[in-house]
Amino acid sequence: MSPPSAIEVDGGIDATSITLPGPLTTKGVVARRAKAGKLVAGTAAYTSSDYFKGPATGRPKAKRWDHYLTLESKSRNPSSLKAAAKYLQKPGLISLGGGLPCAEYFPLEEVTFKVPTPPNFSEKATKESGSILRAGKYDASEGDGIYDLAISMNYGLGVGSAQVIRFVTEHTEMVCNPPYQDWNCALSVGSTAALEQAYRMFCERGDYVLAEEYTFASAVETALPLGVKFFSIKMDDQGLLPEHMDEILCNWDEVERKARKPRLLYTIPTGQNPTGATQGAVRRQAIYKVAQKHDIYIIEDEPYYFLQMQPYTGPNAPDVPPPASNEEFLQALVPTYLSIDIDGRVMRMDSFSKVIAPGTRVGWITASAQIVERFVRHSESSSQNPSGLSQMFLYKLLDESWGHDGYLGWLIALRLSYTKRRDTILAACEKFLPKDIVSWNPPAAGMFLWLSVDWRRHPHAKTKRILEIEEEIYLAAVNQGVLICRGSWFLGQKDAEEPTDMFFRATYAAASEDKIFHAIERFGIAARESFGVK
Amino acid sequence: MSPPSAIEVDGGIDATSITLPGPLTTKGVVARRAKAGKLVAGTAAYTSSDYFKGPATGRPKAKRWDHYLTLESKSRNPSSLKAAAKYLQKPGLISLGGGLPCAEYFPLEEVTFKVPTPPNFSEKATKESGSILRAGKYDASEGDGIYDLAISMNYGLGVGSAQVIRFVTEHTEMVCNPPYQDWNCALSVGSTAALEQAYRMFCERGDYVLAEEYTFASAVETALPLGVKFFSIKMDDQGLLPEHMDEILCNWDEVERKARKPRLLYTIPTGQNPTGATQGAVRRQAIYKVAQKHDIYIIEDEPYYFLQMQPYTGPNAPDVPPPASNEEFLQALVPTYLSIDIDGRVMRMDSFSKVIAPGTRVGWITASAQIVERFVRHSESSSQNPSGLSQMFLYKLLDESWGHDGYLGWLIALRLSYTKRRDTILAACEKFLPKDIVSWNPPAAGMFLWLSVDWRRHPHAKTKRILEIEEEIYLAAVNQGVLICRGSWFLGQKDAEEPTDMFFRATYAAASEDKIFHAIERFGIAARESFGVK
Repeated sequence: MSPPSAIEVDGGIDATSITLPGPLTTKGVVARRAKAGKLVAGTAAYTSSDYFKGPATGRPKAKRWDHYLTLESKSRNPSSLKAAAKYLQKPGLISLGGGLPCAEYFPLEEVTFKVPTPPNFSEKATKESGSILRAGKYDASEGDGIYDLAISMNYGLGVGSAQVIRFVTEHTEMVCNPPYQDWNCALSVGSTAALEQAYRMFCERGDYVLAEEYTFASAVETALPLGVKFFSIKMDDQGLLPEHMDEILCNWDEVERKARKPRLLYTIPTGQNPTGATQGAVRRQAIYKVAQKHDIYIIEDEPYYFLQMQPYTGPNAPDVPPPASNEEFLQALVPTYLSIDIDGRVMRMDSFSKVIAPGTRVGWITASAQIVERFVRHSESSSQNPSGLSQMFLYKLLDESWGHDGYLGWLIALRLSYTKRRDTILAACEKFLPKDIVSWNPPAAGMFLWLSVDWRRHPHAKTKRILEIEEEIYLAAVNQGVLICRGSWFLGQKDAEEPTDMFFRATYAAASEDKIFHAIERFGIAARESFGVK
Repeated sequence: MSPPSAIEVDGGIDATSITLPGPLTTKGVVARRAKAGKLVAGTAAYTSSDYFKGPATGRPKAKRWDHYLTLESKSRNPSSLKAAAKYLQKPGLISLGGGLPCAEYFPLEEVTFKVPTPPNFSEKATKESGSILRAGKYDASEGDGIYDLAISMNYGLGVGSAQVIRFVTEHTEMVCNPPYQDWNCALSVGSTAALEQAYRMFCERGDYVLAEEYTFASAVETALPLGVKFFSIKMDDQGLLPEHMDEILCNWDEVERKARKPRLLYTIPTGQNPTGATQGAVRRQAIYKVAQKHDIYIIEDEPYYFLQMQPYTGPNAPDVPPPASNEEFLQALVPTYLSIDIDGRVMRMDSFSKVIAPGTRVGWITASAQIVERFVRHSESSSQNPSGLSQMFLYKLLDESWGHDGYLGWLIALRLSYTKRRDTILAACEKFLPKDIVSWNPPAAGMFLWLSVDWRRHPHAKTKRILEIEEEIYLAAVNQGVLICRGSWFLGQKDAEEPTDMFFRATYAAASEDKIFHAIERFGIAARESFGVK
């Protein structure tokens, strides 16, 4: 099998020539907030990341994307009723304007959340000594805090509440420190919804989107009904290959392809679904350069960014010590596309699904002001904004209780948990899989192990199609009592030729470690049986 | 002013010729649930209204709408990964398939909601003696209830959780008792999102949607970027005029209009926004017949359905006694389109925004199985499902704590509160407005009073355009310290001729009764000043 892989973090060629100030730290956030004073933001209050960002002195402004926006996106106008909002500032004015219901009629007086108390994040510790976070209906108007149920449970603006936007803006600045001036964040109702909005902003029917050859099936299924197809870029163990992307774009023949040259790259740079591949810093720079060369807009889908794990040391070597501090943890993370995005050509999609819980249905995007404004105009006339109860939970947990330091501590704990899970599945693979037939790279991030199967050694290799053999192995595994996904399900380009390689995707995120062990044992039996080896 | 209007409920010609069994009652729900046994539905469990509906013996099946579905909607396919779900039934199978995170890592051990205890729904009573509803992480797997945070905070299916779908299905059956067999409910992330999905299912770029001449501005703004325009149907004090709708459709000239004949009617039948008009039962039957004649699909947008109020008795007459029972309350409600929809040509959109709280971002649609299936396919690749925290709140409040009886009691309390608010604004209008210039109909439902202004008596009527005079009055009102919406903001057809009548919309839902009184006094002063009368 391959040597242990860690994420290659430094050594990248910095595409920017400007000197950025040091990134924001958790201490810096505290100082900035103290200077700004108490956040005051009531029902459906206007907000923007601009209120919460650091100074952008000396940074360039983002490129404009007018030439890429679809007819649909270009024709979105702000609501005429919202124009009336300017008069709401008038002292003493009584509004009989907006149709917002009165909080008096919200049948919810108070909500509490029992959550972990840092640094004891385990379920057991939480059960025994978790913190109870409380939100009342009129806390903010009664001077007890800055966010209450009267605000969060009423209508809000498409961008999200100021209380949550402040947190995600600061977090994004700490993690990504975007190198251009006019970046902004907006909440989404999850990254799949955000991705659909992005397609509708950038793609007309008939367009192709570039993506990893094997990719997130929902990203493809969200695109297809819009008449938008995926075009495969070849991959290696660091994911997307910039040379192949360049080659595809250099040789794009609109007549032959029956489609204009692609404008969009969809990529999952870290712990890619399904391959588990993580692009190193140098790889990201190289891909960004190709994007610049061909003026490609990048959708950076990063649900697994904070599931970067400790370097894999192999079955019998001691573990690498965990990050000694939040700063060390942040420095160990692979640079994001947003962090090298000098042009403003990246929409980064962050998600709480893998690091807090999918049921929040809250994520956020970060992009240039122009793109975020178009995105928010769309949200306003579709989802409007994420659940107010979810926003309250995230505010109470992340901002009021944990703070940025506590949240980073949580993310470190998660990193160590996933490391343990990954090491379990790798140990099981070492023990149970026939290595002359099945091989794998230890994933450096994410939830997935990508198993490569040398199908050419299969007894039916000469008489059956690769997809038939894949199905046979899949069913043999089910028969042995393990469900594992067929690699071909993740092929993004539906009109591509039959694949030449065979893979299976196993996740170590969900089952208990005990069950993971048994599952791999069963897969080993199934593979041996199917290949007729011992 | 006009005589007091109540909603005309009976006297309708029943378009159906079949005899339906009596509608479901709250007692019937209890009996049905007892018979069905405990609901078992874990993480991302498949569900359908079919599990919870009564027998549909003798009812016809819904019409098929294949010929109306857009290319986008028709090309939605179920996820290939979801096909693997069938194997999950296999005893002892271990899944390394789906990428669902483990509930162990959800930093939420327990949540509580403090809510009103029926029948004491007031805020004061809730503060003093509200019920505390509790949900733990593993309640369901530990035998304590049927829904827990491990389920609700994980990924769910597009249709919504079984726990909430059961409640809304029963509620819909009690209220609407749809006269065809294969109706279904699906949760939405709010009616605006549901409406956008409906447009994308039924409308291609260039299409017109029929709607009330004055309509919900967001419904128009959601349609316009998709290239879908509104076409105005004239209205009277019961809203949409069926004769005008028929006339428009009979004479639709595709060449002249540069658009194919409309297929969709968007209507807000009850407490219409902005006019406050409510279609009576006879009116609904008449509109439904026109829809049948021209094969129009109806979007029934009903956020204000349960804001139907007590009949207005005038300033000096005694109030009508409140409904004596839940059954009497349900019988006093105007029949829904869904309740007369023998063809399955209605998508009803229900919302919790006006009756629970907008911040839940949960609503639901009811339509035929074919339409709901297409809708859910879209939800799966956009919003996925509503917030799990919101679903848990609604389940705990409506199902586990209040039950259907308690919820109907809440809706009666809301009815009486809105009646009081409406009576306040009407009393203020009687007292402060110049009746020879401003006139109105007492709304029977909803949040809005629609003030008609006889602009022809304005001193500038001969020299200025109607929109200029409207703006002058609007600004005069702002100057007096009251914000009230201009009627022209709600004109749905943007390419129509200049309006001939002038209106203003005032809401009595939000401000305190005291402020409503002052606001109308100020509007009276502004109107008198602008018209130069005393």
